[in-house]
Amino acid sequence: MIKVGIIGSTGYAGGELVRLLMGHREAEIVWYGSKSYVDKKYADVYRNMFQIVDEVCMDDNMEALAEQADVIFTATPQGYCASLVNEEILSKARIVDLSADFRIRDVSVYEEWYKIEHKSPQFIGEAVYGLCEINREDVKKARLVANPGCYTTCSILTAYPLAKEGIIDMNTLIVDAKSGTSGAGRGAKLPNLYCEVNENIKAYGVAAHRHTPEIEEQLGYASGERVTISFTPHLVPMNRGILVTEYATLKKDVSQQDVKAIYDAYYGSEQFVRVLDDGVCPETKWVEGSNYTDIGFKIDPRTNRIIMMGALDNLVKGAAGQAIQNMNLMFGLEESEGLRLAPMFP
Amino acid sequence: MIKVGIIGSTGYAGGELVRLLMGHREAEIVWYGSKSYVDKKYADVYRNMFQIVDEVCMDDNMEALAEQADVIFTATPQGYCASLVNEEILSKARIVDLSADFRIRDVSVYEEWYKIEHKSPQFIGEAVYGLCEINREDVKKARLVANPGCYTTCSILTAYPLAKEGIIDMNTLIVDAKSGTSGAGRGAKLPNLYCEVNENIKAYGVAAHRHTPEIEEQLGYASGERVTISFTPHLVPMNRGILVTEYATLKKDVSQQDVKAIYDAYYGSEQFVRVLDDGVCPETKWVEGSNYTDIGFKIDPRTNRIIMMGALDNLVKGAAGQAIQNMNLMFGLEESEGLRLAPMFP
Amino acid sequence: MIKVGIIGSTGYAGGELVRLLMGHREAEIVWYGSKSYVDKKYADVYRNMFQIVDEVCMDDNMEALAEQADVIFTATPQGYCASLVNEEILSKARIVDLSADFRIRDVSVYEEWYKIEHKSPQFIGEAVYGLCEINREDVKKARLVANPGCYTTCSILTAYPLAKEGIIDMNTLIVDAKSGTSGAGRGAKLPNLYCEVNENIKAYGVAAHRHTPEIEEQLGYASGERVTISFTPHLVPMNRGILVTEYATLKKDVSQQDVKAIYDAYYGSEQFVRVLDDGVCPETKWVEGSNYTDIGFKIDPRTNRIIMMGALDNLVKGAAGQAIQNMNLMFGLEESEGLRLAPMFP
Amino acid sequence: MIKVGIIGSTGYAGGELVRLLMGHREAEIVWYGSKSYVDKKYADVYRNMFQIVDEVCMDDNMEALAEQADVIFTATPQGYCASLVNEEILSKARIVDLSADFRIRDVSVYEEWYKIEHKSPQFIGEAVYGLCEINREDVKKARLVANPGCYTTCSILTAYPLAKEGIIDMNTLIVDAKSGTSGAGRGAKLPNLYCEVNENIKAYGVAAHRHTPEIEEQLGYASGERVTISFTPHLVPMNRGILVTEYATLKKDVSQQDVKAIYDAYYGSEQFVRVLDDGVCPETKWVEGSNYTDIGFKIDPRTNRIIMMGALDNLVKGAAGQAIQNMNLMFGLEESEGLRLAPMFP
Repeated sequence: MIKVGIIGSTGYAGGELVRLLMGHREAEIVWYGSKSYVDKKYADVYRNMFQIVDEVCMDDNMEALAEQADVIFTATPQGYCASLVNEEILSKARIVDLSADFRIRDVSVYEEWYKIEHKSPQFIGEAVYGLCEINREDVKKARLVANPGCYTTCSILTAYPLAKEGIIDMNTLIVDAKSGTSGAGRGAKLPNLYCEVNENIKAYGVAAHRHTPEIEEQLGYASGERVTISFTPHLVPMNRGILVTEYATLKKDVSQQDVKAIYDAYYGSEQFVRVLDDGVCPETKWVEGSNYTDIGFKIDPRTNRIIMMGALDNLVKGAAGQAIQNMNLMFGLEESEGLRLAPMFP
Repeated sequence: MIKVGIIGSTGYAGGELVRLLMGHREAEIVWYGSKSYVDKKYADVYRNMFQIVDEVCMDDNMEALAEQADVIFTATPQGYCASLVNEEILSKARIVDLSADFRIRDVSVYEEWYKIEHKSPQFIGEAVYGLCEINREDVKKARLVANPGCYTTCSILTAYPLAKEGIIDMNTLIVDAKSGTSGAGRGAKLPNLYCEVNENIKAYGVAAHRHTPEIEEQLGYASGERVTISFTPHLVPMNRGILVTEYATLKKDVSQQDVKAIYDAYYGSEQFVRVLDDGVCPETKWVEGSNYTDIGFKIDPRTNRIIMMGALDNLVKGAAGQAIQNMNLMFGLEESEGLRLAPMFP
Repeated sequence: MIKVGIIGSTGYAGGELVRLLMGHREAEIVWYGSKSYVDKKYADVYRNMFQIVDEVCMDDNMEALAEQADVIFTATPQGYCASLVNEEILSKARIVDLSADFRIRDVSVYEEWYKIEHKSPQFIGEAVYGLCEINREDVKKARLVANPGCYTTCSILTAYPLAKEGIIDMNTLIVDAKSGTSGAGRGAKLPNLYCEVNENIKAYGVAAHRHTPEIEEQLGYASGERVTISFTPHLVPMNRGILVTEYATLKKDVSQQDVKAIYDAYYGSEQFVRVLDDGVCPETKWVEGSNYTDIGFKIDPRTNRIIMMGALDNLVKGAAGQAIQNMNLMFGLEESEGLRLAPMFP
Repeated sequence: MIKVGIIGSTGYAGGELVRLLMGHREAEIVWYGSKSYVDKKYADVYRNMFQIVDEVCMDDNMEALAEQADVIFTATPQGYCASLVNEEILSKARIVDLSADFRIRDVSVYEEWYKIEHKSPQFIGEAVYGLCEINREDVKKARLVANPGCYTTCSILTAYPLAKEGIIDMNTLIVDAKSGTSGAGRGAKLPNLYCEVNENIKAYGVAAHRHTPEIEEQLGYASGERVTISFTPHLVPMNRGILVTEYATLKKDVSQQDVKAIYDAYYGSEQFVRVLDDGVCPETKWVEGSNYTDIGFKIDPRTNRIIMMGALDNLVKGAAGQAIQNMNLMFGLEESEGLRLAPMFP
């Protein structure tokens, strides 16, 4: 039984880790960390967990936690994990960091986009970018996994095969992303109030969102060239789900079938990426509550562009589910353990 | 491995049966029945099931189905199951009927409220009302289980202990119920369009809803007297969830603690009924996607009334989950098999 | 042109006052008060008002405001208006108070339910309870109007004619109320976050909500007896709208037609109360954005109860619209001026 | 008093025409056309209009209608208006067609995208494309106005000044559009059911949506070149509102201020187009219920692209409001008559 500690267990991503781990047969939570609710019963913070979780919330103490846990999930604000991690901790427990601290190789890029100093750049080198479908073998050996962002997971998986195969002109790539509101976190902020979000859609962080360099870096590795993209997130009045609509000019004369064959070659044997049938557009509702990413696309001969679309649940494949998938790989478990949930509809 | 056939697998309750059974370790679906989608791939009707369910939809043929299945779920309109069932079928397969056909003992009451003739009243006698927490032992032996309605499950479980213990005046019982829209089914009807339901709340079926006599009958058994209630359902702009707010005059001088003790005595060892801590009101979101019913209450000394509240997911404990719970009992499996899903929040 | 000052113009009720007054032909706003946003452009707080309102927000200064305005709306927390008002102010400007400070005649009842000391009980006597349909003549002469609460307006108007005519047993009256989320205000509180409210329904303030004594007092005047009711508010995932479902035992043998005739006698010539056709249940969407209250009912001979239902927009007839209706009466304008908005659907 | 007839008054756009015309001081509706509800009271179809509209629905009879009305609004499916219009009708009444029949100059393009034969191509020449801000003078003289589509109005207004001024490379223009569900109409179709739309976002009509050639044609006139764009609509779980996010490569080295100046030059004196302050992104909620289009933009030096954003209410500026704006121009009324509604928030 793998012992799991969670720092930040009372945010939405932390709550989802707890929900999913309740159904994991080889892991148990030994530490429900929450600075905001120390000593409060976890089930009083999330009443869905009444009579399921009896534990109380613990203050943050990574040293003590490393003694008790085999793996630590940090579902915390940017900069926090980097400020806590050290060699001793890493020698005792593996870490899956759900924040951005170890996702970006170039520390100056990180500091520029996140406007904070990185407190432990010495670990960036060994950290593995935990997009399982792409870095599976590296994840298996990792002590420290940088769990990808929600927008990034969806954006990268959707474009990756075509970037890798040189099908699309990377300089033309535009990612128009739409997210449910749980991505904004559980902080009590006016713009996230029900009446502000409901019956409304808006773009935000235009040309400035922090997930941009992460997408660019990973798609740069895939395509073998420096990639600069337009990325525009939007806030949608729904709890969960991310949809990305990606536009790129085709570099080759390919048919709908050709492109389908490429996607299938990359994802045909993946458990958590579903390449939809020809002509089917992904919908966030079809993946809700599950670890799937659904992908569809359409070639537009009028513009010589391809429109690629991807959908996932931002709290599962975009956060907690992927973190568990990474944990499973790191500990030699079946990759899908705890994650075989069929999407919930409606 | 128990072989399951579903008639009406493409309605919302049918879809939920499929979702839940995907996680059941001792049952497999052998028949995806759907008159409306015969020969169509099930996953083309519910794309959340893409790459999870490969089967196509089958026409209705209960005879053939009874040959192949150990248990048949009928998630069909009122009158349909009663028109199909016969001794030969029942001798081969057990039936869990999610419609109202066998829920009401008095066939004239059924015919009056449902405005249809009952086609097989001879089986009403042996049918067991499948509210597991109340009729557990009878369910275990049943060939034919009448799976309770969504409103009824919630209404009955919430009042049952106090009705049984003679704490409340049954003639004063008022049930004000609120339901998510999936309870209205997947039929393409104007009143169920997004723009008609969204940003709206209304009562419907006032003093005339068909779940009324079902609640009255069961609470009549509990209290040992003839019960006539006011029951008012409301349509709420959300997908899932039922909340009931029940009002009754107290017959005895009881404290908040006394009543809590009664609820605990009835439900303390139940897996799927959670009696909330003192002062906590149930919320539908805390049970979403799960088989739980949450119950809370408040005594109001000013009016000498008690306000009881219950919440469940209408598609799970209010339909498919309870049906599987019944199946588990009928086949001697662990009652919670396939149903150990933590509620999803948010 | 009547000069209007608003204290608390950046809450949801304040914002609605501004919206409605933009269409009022005989009133203009001279003071956009907002302690939280002093010196900030009003249209930067509510961007719907961009290029419509150019003014900046003013700090609270009732003395200065009374010099400039003919009427002051206080859309502020409980206790605030009572702490500011004095004879000098009232001698210069009339006040329509949207808080509860002057709604309840018995100061001890106010202090018990609101848990605050009343700072100017000397004005309670002269304050007029501004439910225009009931107190029209008094409102016309008032200096200080206590604008009714949202739940109360709906609850009282729905039951008033039957209470007054002695048709219902007041001791059996139960009000089950459902409200959209704008009623909870624009404060940045966790329970009002989108993801906490969306896809969820719950009761709150059970047997303890502050609107209870206000309903009881007014229906007490109507029925001529002391009234004690059960009142249960619920939070519904929608922006606007209140629906009340009221239950009472009939004291007389009346038909559906009899009751309709009574309602028509009271409201037939009212512009903002619509008694619906027989059998039609009110829906909040049919009154959204307008000053209407819609009322329907159903007699249930099985239980000898009547179920009365009322719907209004909590920000309009439940707050800002009614406040303007009161202002119109106070200044001898046409009662419907600024309020002739057809409800918006969908 | 202008006499107005509406064909298709019971669809959502028709209903919005009725709502807005109730507040119009110089127009009255003389014909509530609705093939589906002939002889039914209009207020029984849209109960928000109870006691506001007393008329019953009329069958379609354009000849008879032309005798009674000064202007006819056709809020009908594609092809219908074209099949009814003739010289005699046009000689008696002006027509504002809310369908696509007269929006596209090249009849072969119309027939290719709409897959129907055009029944009266002889009137395409004289029809004026009713985007008031661009074709104001022509509208004033028109007998037949083609009221623009909802997506198109938003897409064109947002890009128009930059297209016209040669600031953006038209071949790089990508329009990613998001719409509320009322745009899908009031037909009882499964994909528009509450539970299918709610908590979901999807793209549809990818590279094939019928509004594409309309946008291309109008932006072609603006830029003076043939324009081919990518246009992707998305369905958003909300009732009203369209947001477009448009991407284009800059052809000139312009600053944020330069572009603001261009937008202001075009729209600074327009009543219904609001160019937002620098850095402010439009939100659909800020225009809900009103005739405004809000526009914002951001230059991204990293990609040398500009991201333009526009928002409107699809039923008002995207349909009924614009139709009335056109009517006002055609009859020499004040352009804003009946349309001075402040947006409703929340």
